[in-house]
Amino acid sequence: MGRTGRRPGNPDTRAEILQAAAARFAAHGYERATVRAIAADAGVDPALVHRFFGSKQDVFVAALRLPFTPATVVARLLDGSPKDVGTRVVSTFLSVWDQPGAGDRLRAVLRSATTEEHGARMLREFLLDALLVPLTEGVAPDRARYRASLAAAQMVGLAMLRFVLVVDPLASAEPSALAAAYGPSVQHVLTGALELPGGSR
Amino acid sequence: MGRTGRRPGNPDTRAEILQAAAARFAAHGYERATVRAIAADAGVDPALVHRFFGSKQDVFVAALRLPFTPATVVARLLDGSPKDVGTRVVSTFLSVWDQPGAGDRLRAVLRSATTEEHGARMLREFLLDALLVPLTEGVAPDRARYRASLAAAQMVGLAMLRFVLVVDPLASAEPSALAAAYGPSVQHVLTGALELPGGSR
Repeated sequence: MGRTGRRPGNPDTRAEILQAAAARFAAHGYERATVRAIAADAGVDPALVHRFFGSKQDVFVAALRLPFTPATVVARLLDGSPKDVGTRVVSTFLSVWDQPGAGDRLRAVLRSATTEEHGARMLREFLLDALLVPLTEGVAPDRARYRASLAAAQMVGLAMLRFVLVVDPLASAEPSALAAAYGPSVQHVLTGALELPGGSR
Repeated sequence: MGRTGRRPGNPDTRAEILQAAAARFAAHGYERATVRAIAADAGVDPALVHRFFGSKQDVFVAALRLPFTPATVVARLLDGSPKDVGTRVVSTFLSVWDQPGAGDRLRAVLRSATTEEHGARMLREFLLDALLVPLTEGVAPDRARYRASLAAAQMVGLAMLRFVLVVDPLASAEPSALAAAYGPSVQHVLTGALELPGGSR
């Protein structure tokens, strides 16, 4: 129960924790925004934050108001032919950005990752550790982390060109057409051969 | 001749113009850093800046101290089999970043592109208009600008993961191994089919 005597079941409490979390993550970055500090800002006990949301990563996802948890999106991406996983990754990624309000919040994550080390760490932990490494382990276990980092490069670049730099024709392409054009590139790094046939590496 | 009476042939004058240009581009971005203002900062006539460097784009390249001009790098990339152009693009890109001091200057360009509209415009004009569009027109004239914007996404993402976010194993991979792994993805968007076989776009 909150130290202010607020009832834990109150929907306002949940919203206030998320508001405090969003403000802390924006001001201090992922690493330094502790669950303890978020709880103090919201006037509740840290245990209540964990009971509502789970881990700090879950608080982060909830504060970004992303319409998924990493585990469910990985499961959904793995549910289908491994041959088309690259295209599914691109279309899922684009649909997340197109959720109302998500673009502004994700753009802020990218900007923070480009300018501050804790923002960079937040993106690494979220995009790699929570999403792309578990996904890659499900489709191509050999060198999964290398493949995941190559795919992360392609997704971060796609977001940069489409949503930050706004470069046409990429920026105005239909999501399904863009997924069809870009998906095979992602597919290559996820499941293709990583060395040249001649072995020149 | 400069308004301060400095001799145009003096090597110091050239260096002072470049220093003024680098400071202006960093402080005001590409668009607002006029040749007139750069010349004024260096205490010379704008005509002298044009005589030394050519266009504003050439001043920018010189101020970044990149070891090439866009036209020569495009010509070099087109000199070889169109089947391997993707791998050549990646290895050339990595070798530019590895020039002494280039990493810091290029990271500053990326940061400015992520946080300011004039930085974004500078990157669009340089990476797309000066480099990737002319390159793509040389290998796959159909939808060259769309292909170039897809390749730009992959190169910006590669730079972000390797040099800004520093995500391993990508960040510590040997340049030749990385070019072999990532090149085919770039190749696909430069010369491959952009729609799914079923025509679902």
